[in-house]
Amino acid sequence: MREHYERLLRRTADGSWRRVPSYRNGLDHFPAAAKRGTGTRLFLRSTDTEGAGFEYVTFVHGAGNRALCLCQPGPYLEGHSGFMHGGAIATIIDTTLGTCALEAAGSVMTAKLSIDFLAPVPLGSVVLVDGGVDRRDGRKIFLSCQVRGAAGDTLHAEATGEDGGAPGGRGHPHPRPRPLPTERPPPRVPVSG
Amino acid sequence: MREHYERLLRRTADGSWRRVPSYRNGLDHFPAAAKRGTGTRLFLRSTDTEGAGFEYVTFVHGAGNRALCLCQPGPYLEGHSGFMHGGAIATIIDTTLGTCALEAAGSVMTAKLSIDFLAPVPLGSVVLVDGGVDRRDGRKIFLSCQVRGAAGDTLHAEATGEDGGAPGGRGHPHPRPRPLPTERPPPRVPVSG
Repeated sequence: MREHYERLLRRTADGSWRRVPSYRNGLDHFPAAAKRGTGTRLFLRSTDTEGAGFEYVTFVHGAGNRALCLCQPGPYLEGHSGFMHGGAIATIIDTTLGTCALEAAGSVMTAKLSIDFLAPVPLGSVVLVDGGVDRRDGRKIFLSCQVRGAAGDTLHAEATGEDGGAPGGRGHPHPRPRPLPTERPPPRVPVSG
Repeated sequence: MREHYERLLRRTADGSWRRVPSYRNGLDHFPAAAKRGTGTRLFLRSTDTEGAGFEYVTFVHGAGNRALCLCQPGPYLEGHSGFMHGGAIATIIDTTLGTCALEAAGSVMTAKLSIDFLAPVPLGSVVLVDGGVDRRDGRKIFLSCQVRGAAGDTLHAEATGEDGGAPGGRGHPHPRPRPLPTERPPPRVPVSG
């Protein structure tokens, strides 16, 4: 991972890329929230044990429409035995696309996320999440990304996302009041194993 | 949360629903993997601090095509200040649909996941993830779910998923060897803020 990190770090030398510090909670970044509560922590930093959770670093391009995240999933991100949980993959994708959107458009929230899981990610391997803005339509931002093995030989996942601008960073960008569907009825036709 | 839990628990009395115990790692469930390594932990159990991460319990219907997960996100699942991280929402969705698919078809892996985030989930609130099997096509299982506030007044997210049977629980159900795309070129047209 160190080698890839150094390579990405060198790209920041001319100022076209910038390294984004990872942080433990959002309070430093949302001063208004600081008075509200304490004890919260960014989801990716929920694990106390060093090296057991998300080891990651993100680089964003100065033009604001591309983010590269180098991530090594620790042993506490397990889903299927020995492999990264689908939710953990979704988390690093959402974070990378969110960083990209944040850099491109300021405060945003994820509105849609679609992921194709193509090959499982072994715990301890190093992956590169390569995300970018594809297009914008008003306040909506359409993004996509690929999760590849850092050695370049495996495409683990592809995803598309849609983010909406959230003025002031509070509330949801797409309030869609609609009637709640009635509770799904109990299954009637058993699914055969 | 207790009240909802008790209500769901009562449904298990006649045997039509079953409570699935949550667990810390997959080794108990995959004896073959036990010799391989130690120190891994299920992603949803990566947080050591009691009550800070995913507080959840899942109930599956005996017919095997429906799962209900009651979840209270703790303060360590933060994304935007005060709200659950999109990746954490994706995680509880993936887990619920995975449990449903596992119950319906045995060992499976997530192949696709698409989520519409409709309203942010406040940390500490209680949500109900209501997932079910919509249809099957050979070894593929198509599922969907809704994430609602337990009070029934908010639809937080809707999702669809596709799982593929993975014989023996190892490897990926849809190996799709394909050439790796070349690295995305650096952005040329800056995105205006």
